[in-house]
Amino acid sequence: MAAELCGISLVEVPNTGYPEFRIQVEKYSEKIEEVKEKFGKLPALIILTHADPYYGNVVDAEKVGEIAESYGVPFMVNAAYTAGIMPVDMKKMKADFLTISAHKSMASLAPLGFLVIREYSDHVLRSVSAALDWSKRSFPNKMVNLFGCSIGGLPLISAMHTFPYVVERVKKWNSELEKIRWFIEEMEKLGGIKQLGEKPHNHHLTHFETPILWEISKRHKRRGFFLAEELEERGIIGVQRGLTKHLKISVYGLSWEEVKQVRDAFQDILNK
Amino acid sequence: MAAELCGISLVEVPNTGYPEFRIQVEKYSEKIEEVKEKFGKLPALIILTHADPYYGNVVDAEKVGEIAESYGVPFMVNAAYTAGIMPVDMKKMKADFLTISAHKSMASLAPLGFLVIREYSDHVLRSVSAALDWSKRSFPNKMVNLFGCSIGGLPLISAMHTFPYVVERVKKWNSELEKIRWFIEEMEKLGGIKQLGEKPHNHHLTHFETPILWEISKRHKRRGFFLAEELEERGIIGVQRGLTKHLKISVYGLSWEEVKQVRDAFQDILNK
Repeated sequence: MAAELCGISLVEVPNTGYPEFRIQVEKYSEKIEEVKEKFGKLPALIILTHADPYYGNVVDAEKVGEIAESYGVPFMVNAAYTAGIMPVDMKKMKADFLTISAHKSMASLAPLGFLVIREYSDHVLRSVSAALDWSKRSFPNKMVNLFGCSIGGLPLISAMHTFPYVVERVKKWNSELEKIRWFIEEMEKLGGIKQLGEKPHNHHLTHFETPILWEISKRHKRRGFFLAEELEERGIIGVQRGLTKHLKISVYGLSWEEVKQVRDAFQDILNK
Repeated sequence: MAAELCGISLVEVPNTGYPEFRIQVEKYSEKIEEVKEKFGKLPALIILTHADPYYGNVVDAEKVGEIAESYGVPFMVNAAYTAGIMPVDMKKMKADFLTISAHKSMASLAPLGFLVIREYSDHVLRSVSAALDWSKRSFPNKMVNLFGCSIGGLPLISAMHTFPYVVERVKKWNSELEKIRWFIEEMEKLGGIKQLGEKPHNHHLTHFETPILWEISKRHKRRGFFLAEELEERGIIGVQRGLTKHLKISVYGLSWEEVKQVRDAFQDILNK
């Protein structure tokens, strides 16, 4: 959207497709060369989504950062699904910009996001320079790219309030990942369930292909709704109603006891 | 800011200056002619702030709407300080766009605003047309000018919740105005206090020039802070601390009893 608003073109780096959907990091160089060839200049910005919300693949941002640096192109990492749940090191990734969504992985209220800038801040946070022609009023404290009032109120209060909690939970990322990987293994053991995306998995967002649930839905009186309803009966909420072919789920932040309960719930539903 | 972002120029319509600061509505034609002369084309948009937050002057938007229509230029009314407290009729004002700030006059939580569009919606609410070159993903449901996620969460819930209340209170605007005008009259009777902006006043935001409070602050041990502190002792909060030369105040939504209490508080402070 930002690109379209500025009238600039987008070039996409491909992924490996089914079942892994891994972003082909090594192709960033290739794409930069393509842009150079086609437009006669380097890209204005290289963007990488650190972890995607579809398959929960965590991309090797350090490698992309090296490529960006070698070409001297600014590098932005979209950490909407990583910053706040796992360690993110801008310096290591050689990222100039980091975008974070407060209401995604930062445990805060919407709508709020953060843009962290290592370089280019003079350019990006340019003040309004125009003054009004008659009254001579000027707005040196307003940033052109922040569109008027920056955010305040409850979202900001919630972000301030949750930050210490977020800092603590990030430290526990490795033990979270252990639970997540155990859960994936257990789910696949149930049969007719296959995790998509990279293996071993490095993120809490987990995408299962679930032909067995699809089969059940075809003969179940509640059709596709049976799954969400059965889960709700067992205290598991948030699963999108009506979907059974695929299942996106996260056990982030649950205790071992609770992760086992989720596994047991699926086992129970499948044995019914 | 929007103008600077789009690289377009701003031309300002003057006001009459001290003490009324009335926007010179009749000069809109003159300014349009100036723009035509200077740039060889008509302005892209005519903007009017329906009531300003400095003096609480309500501008004759219908007259500006007629001028805009006669030139065929789109007309935007910034109703941040009017829609939600007094009747606003887009059709009467011949406004194509109305901007409303939910956390200003709509009794809702920040950050939320509304853009009401009568014409030009196809242009303004253009969908994202670009598709990604490799995956062919497109985003027909995303609006270029809405920058990603539109707003949700608590601000939206609060706006939905307050809307019926706002509708009711707008109906009571005339009796509100009666209290506000009475209050202004009473304040001026105290001596050394003068209301700025149009008279009789048509808005709840009221700006007093208060040389008498300034005089007191010079010999008071709490200096400029005395006013806010004295008012707080009497249960009146929200007055900017330290200011005494000018006073911006609103008695909107108070009962007659309460408006009288505010007047009595000032009387009491001045008689001390």
